[in-house]
Amino acid sequence: MSIAEQWLAEPVLSWMKPSNADSDVVLSSRIRLARNLSGIPFPNRADGKQLAQVVTQVDDVIPELEKSGHQYAAIRLDSLNPLERFVLVERHITSPGHVEEPCERSIILRDDAAVSILVNEEDHLRIQCMRPGLDLAEAYVNANSIDDMLESQLDFAYSEQLGYLTSCPTNIGTGLRASVMLHLPGLVLTKQIQRMVSAATQLGMAVRGIYGEGTEASGNMFQLSNQLTLGYSEQEIVDNLTSVARQVVEQERGARGALLADAGVSLTDRIWRAYGVLRFARSISAQEALALLSEVRLGVDLGILDAVEAQVFNELLVTIRPHYLIKQYGKPEYDAAERDQLRARVIREKLAQASQTKTEQDGEEL
Amino acid sequence: MSIAEQWLAEPVLSWMKPSNADSDVVLSSRIRLARNLSGIPFPNRADGKQLAQVVTQVDDVIPELEKSGHQYAAIRLDSLNPLERFVLVERHITSPGHVEEPCERSIILRDDAAVSILVNEEDHLRIQCMRPGLDLAEAYVNANSIDDMLESQLDFAYSEQLGYLTSCPTNIGTGLRASVMLHLPGLVLTKQIQRMVSAATQLGMAVRGIYGEGTEASGNMFQLSNQLTLGYSEQEIVDNLTSVARQVVEQERGARGALLADAGVSLTDRIWRAYGVLRFARSISAQEALALLSEVRLGVDLGILDAVEAQVFNELLVTIRPHYLIKQYGKPEYDAAERDQLRARVIREKLAQASQTKTEQDGEEL
Repeated sequence: MSIAEQWLAEPVLSWMKPSNADSDVVLSSRIRLARNLSGIPFPNRADGKQLAQVVTQVDDVIPELEKSGHQYAAIRLDSLNPLERFVLVERHITSPGHVEEPCERSIILRDDAAVSILVNEEDHLRIQCMRPGLDLAEAYVNANSIDDMLESQLDFAYSEQLGYLTSCPTNIGTGLRASVMLHLPGLVLTKQIQRMVSAATQLGMAVRGIYGEGTEASGNMFQLSNQLTLGYSEQEIVDNLTSVARQVVEQERGARGALLADAGVSLTDRIWRAYGVLRFARSISAQEALALLSEVRLGVDLGILDAVEAQVFNELLVTIRPHYLIKQYGKPEYDAAERDQLRARVIREKLAQASQTKTEQDGEEL
Repeated sequence: MSIAEQWLAEPVLSWMKPSNADSDVVLSSRIRLARNLSGIPFPNRADGKQLAQVVTQVDDVIPELEKSGHQYAAIRLDSLNPLERFVLVERHITSPGHVEEPCERSIILRDDAAVSILVNEEDHLRIQCMRPGLDLAEAYVNANSIDDMLESQLDFAYSEQLGYLTSCPTNIGTGLRASVMLHLPGLVLTKQIQRMVSAATQLGMAVRGIYGEGTEASGNMFQLSNQLTLGYSEQEIVDNLTSVARQVVEQERGARGALLADAGVSLTDRIWRAYGVLRFARSISAQEALALLSEVRLGVDLGILDAVEAQVFNELLVTIRPHYLIKQYGKPEYDAAERDQLRARVIREKLAQASQTKTEQDGEEL
């Protein structure tokens, strides 16, 4: 199976696995570096020939990248069908903007999908490194080493005064965007989420939905990232965001603890009902499924519900997305109603597989 | 186990079992005859001594009744605790009015609980005969034969002109009230229920909740009964109600068929979700449980859901009632929240027992 086929099929990539002490709140960490080749206009200004030149130059660096021991695949976006391109977005391998106009655009993807280099997105290159849990430091080490390999072969646009030059001024300087994907059902249910968002904003952070700018939060998942890329060192940005993320993690744990103490039975009831609906529904939208999965995951993290493991949640997060769902289990001609039925069936089957009938039937005895 | 203990414990009495061709809509049929002893004031006017006289006179008829081969128990209401009295009401063995003032009031109960004689309810005697499904004719045959046995021993207040005299003029004449307990989710969901109620009312019938006058319909269950007791023969009343009930059965089946045709997936989804919530909820009110059980029973009748049998529904109908629930599974000191948790647990356990994991996981494949 080629790398390209593998990321289309495998639901849980390495960086999606609950792994470290903060995995109860932080689903994953990401470092993204924006880089541009000097002497070529930014992608929004470049013509087809110039874009093609960027693609070729980046392709040529692959042998250098592979000295690290990892394999890389160069995936031309126009070699994929629209469904496959959207699956890439759903899997956080690339961005919605990148797949909009697939010509002369590509992704250099590492075999474990934890590193991807988006070619001719908003910038010529965007280096993305993903890690499970809260682990921006390690993600930054990876990104930095890839940046070094690339820089040894490519001439990046750089100003002594401004740092790395980028298509959008908000990325100028370090070109670094650090972000963490957070699961915050506690803060949402205790209605503290707005206060957290305000506080994070005041600390120079942005809080967004899980597909970045302009997307809504769903399933109580949020992306926390740095706003400023200029005036701080890379290490400062990473340390800063890590520190804010840790505070959010503590707040979220506090909120969960309070929920459990104040609303023990009603919370337990709510979580098990969410599980019951997912386990037996015959039709379900992605939005509702995300909301219910979020409650089930909360139940797993709080030790209320042991019929499934946290990883099943992470797997279903991907599986229920419209395009991945159709690609893996359906047919492109399915309409929305058929897709909702298919989603319900896939969820039922995964949960039935995952559950041990014993634990399902156990409940706190009165 | 005495008869009295038996009806407190056994959830499904003989007349609650789905039995005949109309059991998909008609849960049970009941004939009730109102009779009074001549020379003694009606219960609302009688003093304690007179009431006691009625109780004794009726007790004395038991040997005559037992010539039929059945055993009968005389249960003094003041020998029961309040919880046990309410259980009697929940089980439709007596009425809410009968247990309000338990002194000098009793029930003569046949061993299968299909016949009960309420002593000193609104009238001195109310003979109740229950049958499963739509079977008023047989219930009337039973009631009539018991009436004959009683009349051979007791002197009933009777006027040549008016017929049997009763405490309330609405019962005068035959003293006969025939009623059927209907499960009408189809008519409710298709919003035809009001039209059915109006039509039945115009035909001289009353439509009420399942605990009779003044009670609300819950779980899509309704009691259909004759309004008039005077001016028709017993047989006419029974035939009339049977005929109206048959029409309602046909309407209900039509509504279910239409639902299945028009809203196949969404109906199926709704039914399975109801099942999912019942299967896993940790707290549930009687009202909500009834509503969800009604949907599950509809699913069973439509062949959508085969994880449980119709009889489990009938059993749960009784089990989830507040007093029966506490009597069988709980403690009298439970508060409402504890009762809701206990109810959820009992439902979970019964459904888990009843379900075969295989059928639960089956679903219509897309």
